[in-house]
Amino acid sequence: MADIAIGLHGGCGTLDRSLQSEAEWTEARQHIADALRAGWAILANGGSSLDAVEATVVVLENSIHFNAGYGAALHAEGGHELDASIMDGRDLRAGAMAAMTRTRNPIRAARALLESGRAVMLTGPAGDDFAAAAGLDMVAPDYFTTERRVKALASLKARAAQGTFAKASEAEKHGTVGAVARDRNGHLAAATSTGGFNNKPIGRVGDSPIIGAGTYAADGVCAFSGTGQGEIFIRCVAGHELASRIRYGGQKLGEAAHDLVHNTLGSFGIGAGLVAIGPEGDPVTPYNTLGMYRGWITTRGEMVVATHGELHALGAVG
Amino acid sequence: MADIAIGLHGGCGTLDRSLQSEAEWTEARQHIADALRAGWAILANGGSSLDAVEATVVVLENSIHFNAGYGAALHAEGGHELDASIMDGRDLRAGAMAAMTRTRNPIRAARALLESGRAVMLTGPAGDDFAAAAGLDMVAPDYFTTERRVKALASLKARAAQGTFAKASEAEKHGTVGAVARDRNGHLAAATSTGGFNNKPIGRVGDSPIIGAGTYAADGVCAFSGTGQGEIFIRCVAGHELASRIRYGGQKLGEAAHDLVHNTLGSFGIGAGLVAIGPEGDPVTPYNTLGMYRGWITTRGEMVVATHGELHALGAVG
Repeated sequence: MADIAIGLHGGCGTLDRSLQSEAEWTEARQHIADALRAGWAILANGGSSLDAVEATVVVLENSIHFNAGYGAALHAEGGHELDASIMDGRDLRAGAMAAMTRTRNPIRAARALLESGRAVMLTGPAGDDFAAAAGLDMVAPDYFTTERRVKALASLKARAAQGTFAKASEAEKHGTVGAVARDRNGHLAAATSTGGFNNKPIGRVGDSPIIGAGTYAADGVCAFSGTGQGEIFIRCVAGHELASRIRYGGQKLGEAAHDLVHNTLGSFGIGAGLVAIGPEGDPVTPYNTLGMYRGWITTRGEMVVATHGELHALGAVG
Repeated sequence: MADIAIGLHGGCGTLDRSLQSEAEWTEARQHIADALRAGWAILANGGSSLDAVEATVVVLENSIHFNAGYGAALHAEGGHELDASIMDGRDLRAGAMAAMTRTRNPIRAARALLESGRAVMLTGPAGDDFAAAAGLDMVAPDYFTTERRVKALASLKARAAQGTFAKASEAEKHGTVGAVARDRNGHLAAATSTGGFNNKPIGRVGDSPIIGAGTYAADGVCAFSGTGQGEIFIRCVAGHELASRIRYGGQKLGEAAHDLVHNTLGSFGIGAGLVAIGPEGDPVTPYNTLGMYRGWITTRGEMVVATHGELHALGAVG
């Protein structure tokens, strides 16, 4: 039996501490803890890593604090196009959805597609139609819209009009959620969900629904979910690059993940972060920005949650 | 100065010789030769591999014989959704389009997106809107429809209704076009374009527009374009897998490409093929099906075209 473990990220960025109140930071950490517990409960009961990462990402999608599902970023015309993907390291099965607008939890749609064998990736209205036929919760497109994202979009557009786009807080622009897990049978899985970034062009697909770029899992090697400017993650095939450095390059997970974020992805001048896990040991969460929402439960059942440099040790999970 | 070379595939499958007349096989080989000459002319004039693969794929898109652009496969409702991507090995820039319906040459749209820096990937109507704004040739959606694809779809649906889907010729189901090239500066590039497969679900995205899966290029390593059941190429991250076996695994291009097709992809029970090129030498074109439309021009300027086992040496290119 393998040691179970789970980790997640809730997006990286400048995460200025002044952007929200202390109560909001506390609530965000609470939601991270809730998400970890949801996945851990499955793993502790002997469930699969695939079920665990889905359950963890659902909690993050349902939280206002993260750019996925409810509270997702708004595209340039003020609506939402949601992307998600999930991969099972046991047999490399995968499901990916791009540009969803009506499915409450895009990660559930990706999982249902994985199970269906109908395709690995669907885009546009067909993805929502598939989700509805699969019996998933459907919502009106404005379900996802929150006041903070509307304000952020207005702020971004105003600054763009003033030519000061470069000064916009990165926290307003990016963010994605993702999870990785290892179950008792040693199987690895990864899941990622996102609203993209505020003011993104309609139709733009980032790395989150791209297997190999934003999400990847292969038993015996690693499971991966990324956050940062998706275009660079796609061009670097970031998830599969991490796996390849381990599988063929002989690197350890920690060093390979650190090098990928700080040197490979960082060399493009972007903010980048990831969560990854290997066949043994605890998740790693390197990032090169001021902060990254993240958390994990170690093989000894100890939960850790963080948004910036300092770690909040929340003790043993029941 | 590097030795220039170019290679292409026009899709793999059972390619029953009885499926079309000898005149049609001859015309298909002629179009392959035309496509190779279009790319070679650019390379021979000192142009870039990126320009060359785009020009080559445009010729294949415009030919009735290949499942891309004009003559593309029909989806389950009788229309077309076209996918394409292109990648520059020099700097890993890439452009990808999914589910296009109105752009005459999807590969030109992918190239324009690459140059724009606006995004790496667009899906749905936004891709066509981008192409139109970029000044590309736009067409009515039925421009792509040919009698042979309409008949093939009807035949597939009839057989599916009779429960004999498994006997349908693979040639009716799959097919994709792609090209790789190396220019005088040693830069590598790859491009892929497809209509997917006949009777595909609406919204289904295969590997062709997925950077790392159906298309990949990195200078000093390889350029790659794949053909076959896209879902497996996505799950195996086939293009980047080939590059990783060379870069980190120390394999040679030829052995890595052969192993990828016959063992890795073949282990899933699918038909698969690819064209790839490295920093030196000629393109390789392994496939595990009865045939694959393919052709290349060697570093010595000799053109070879083939559809099945026998090679047609067409002599030196002027």
